[in-house]
Amino acid sequence: MLPPGSTIGILGGGQLGRMLAIAAARLGFHCHIYCPEPESPAFEVASAHTLAAYEDEAALAAFAKGVQVVTLEFENVPVETLRFLEARVPVAPSSGALEIAQDRLAEKTFAERLGLRTAPFADIASVESLHSALDMIGLPAILKTRRFGYDGKGQVKIVTREGAASAFQALRDSPAILEGFVRFSREVSVIAARTVSGEFVAFEVTENEHRNHILDRSMVPARIGERACGAAMDAARKIGDGLGYVGTFAVEFFVVGDGDAEDVVVNEIAPRVHNSGHWTIDGAVTCQFEQHIRAICGWPLGSARRRERVEMINLVGADMELWAELAAQPATKMHLYGKSETRRGRKMGHATRLLGNP
Amino acid sequence: MLPPGSTIGILGGGQLGRMLAIAAARLGFHCHIYCPEPESPAFEVASAHTLAAYEDEAALAAFAKGVQVVTLEFENVPVETLRFLEARVPVAPSSGALEIAQDRLAEKTFAERLGLRTAPFADIASVESLHSALDMIGLPAILKTRRFGYDGKGQVKIVTREGAASAFQALRDSPAILEGFVRFSREVSVIAARTVSGEFVAFEVTENEHRNHILDRSMVPARIGERACGAAMDAARKIGDGLGYVGTFAVEFFVVGDGDAEDVVVNEIAPRVHNSGHWTIDGAVTCQFEQHIRAICGWPLGSARRRERVEMINLVGADMELWAELAAQPATKMHLYGKSETRRGRKMGHATRLLGNP
Repeated sequence: MLPPGSTIGILGGGQLGRMLAIAAARLGFHCHIYCPEPESPAFEVASAHTLAAYEDEAALAAFAKGVQVVTLEFENVPVETLRFLEARVPVAPSSGALEIAQDRLAEKTFAERLGLRTAPFADIASVESLHSALDMIGLPAILKTRRFGYDGKGQVKIVTREGAASAFQALRDSPAILEGFVRFSREVSVIAARTVSGEFVAFEVTENEHRNHILDRSMVPARIGERACGAAMDAARKIGDGLGYVGTFAVEFFVVGDGDAEDVVVNEIAPRVHNSGHWTIDGAVTCQFEQHIRAICGWPLGSARRRERVEMINLVGADMELWAELAAQPATKMHLYGKSETRRGRKMGHATRLLGNP
Repeated sequence: MLPPGSTIGILGGGQLGRMLAIAAARLGFHCHIYCPEPESPAFEVASAHTLAAYEDEAALAAFAKGVQVVTLEFENVPVETLRFLEARVPVAPSSGALEIAQDRLAEKTFAERLGLRTAPFADIASVESLHSALDMIGLPAILKTRRFGYDGKGQVKIVTREGAASAFQALRDSPAILEGFVRFSREVSVIAARTVSGEFVAFEVTENEHRNHILDRSMVPARIGERACGAAMDAARKIGDGLGYVGTFAVEFFVVGDGDAEDVVVNEIAPRVHNSGHWTIDGAVTCQFEQHIRAICGWPLGSARRRERVEMINLVGADMELWAELAAQPATKMHLYGKSETRRGRKMGHATRLLGNP
């Protein structure tokens, strides 16, 4: 167990880094944020920060010297950065886990090998391979970049065969994956944490609604049957074990079928704390951020017990104008990220409504 | 309502300032800590700090220019400092409220004028006045410095008439107050917040146990009857209104009598967030720190609803060695203050046990 007073290095300085730093401070840890963006929201709640590129080896080496463990707040940190740091200081999650979760093709292949349901998918290297994949997978389908996609960025829906070539062009020849379209009734996620010794603690399944491909609302408990719920939990555990994962991670699922046929299909793995787990700050005994800090510091995990019914709403772009209205609701917990500029599609904060028991 | 993105100035950089800064960050505020002590626990979770004396007018003036409101985390900030700042920037609580709460004599006189029960007391300016006060109040009694006492510092118990002179000497001729000894069954406190418009929200009455004059354990709900509970709430409201108080404050009480005769006696007013309110971080919908930030920023207050039964234990000095044991209890929430040096009697952290409903 890393003792309080130790310093945790966090790659990335956004709101996830900010909430990780706050959780770490509560446990008596110091945080050092490493981020190439000035005015990062995490800087002001951390004891130190380095403003440098992820490729800056001198800065990375100095950073590694000053911290006892390194973690990350977003999955697009270059794997090479993590490997460079792993040679110098403990890093969690590992570069191996990150490598799989960063690449939609590796991720889907990994989930399939674990025996989990995914959308049908195919590796796309050329317009020709796209056409033969469409033969196999059918229409509609979604062409996605293998890497660096988030919040709906880097993906194009293909509705007709004629649209294939332009979809391929739209992704500018990036390595891509074609995924079959899953007709789902709703989307859910499991946020879980795993320690190096294999202890695994998951939060209750969360139901998520998106707007313009960005998470809009999360609700717990989710409207999902016991069997599908169990399948989601089981999948999260297999994924955690399969990755040898250390820290908090999220698995997003589509809920398909209904009644006895209700089931979950793995959509995406996020090797980090996750927007759909923000409700845990106010709604669970231990929040996802504290769970992550505990896991990477070798502490036992905390209780994931839900304390009441909750609903989390994201404040994206102009939603920020709602702050005064939300602040006037006595049982709504506000979380604003301290971003000076409101931009369209930018996550400015979130609010959690506490709805009482059970 | 002060909008998110505004900067709050906090006088004092201890654990109370640290927890205030974390609560402020969550609401999207920036914090600037003003404190004469290097390595203050609040510095590392705030965006800025000034290391200067409370008498440094140039530093205070610069501080006032950079913040939209000023508050404090401990009551021994010189009243002159607050007055200097009040001429430049909104300050809450006010110098007037602080002046009363800083001085045991003014505080007791104020409570008495509100019609509240206090221990019998007398102003002590000389050994002679001490003797005549002892005639009136009787033995045992406690001689206390009027100002700057906390955690049992600055007080001497007088058991015999012969002990009077040495007690007076022990306080080194500081202005003092003699208080009659109250035979109490237990100690409780009310933590409440009040806004400038007079909105008042109190947390449930908290039961407190001290060890070596330092708070050891707080429990909610308190073992206290409904009538005495109501009297405590009523007293807190009168005190808040009487002071025209803005922010979170605490009133400590002795519980006396039992059955129908159970009642509360005002012991002390703390014009700040209070150790016995730390349970609210994990145990209430809104914590005392957020309530304070809301009040001083002109936001409506949040819900003070208790979420489950709780017990808070202080980690004082060597108690810090318990950290690993406490960290292994899944429903115990750890709060460590990041102090590098463990000293006897020093508050190093606290832990809140969540004990379920109701």
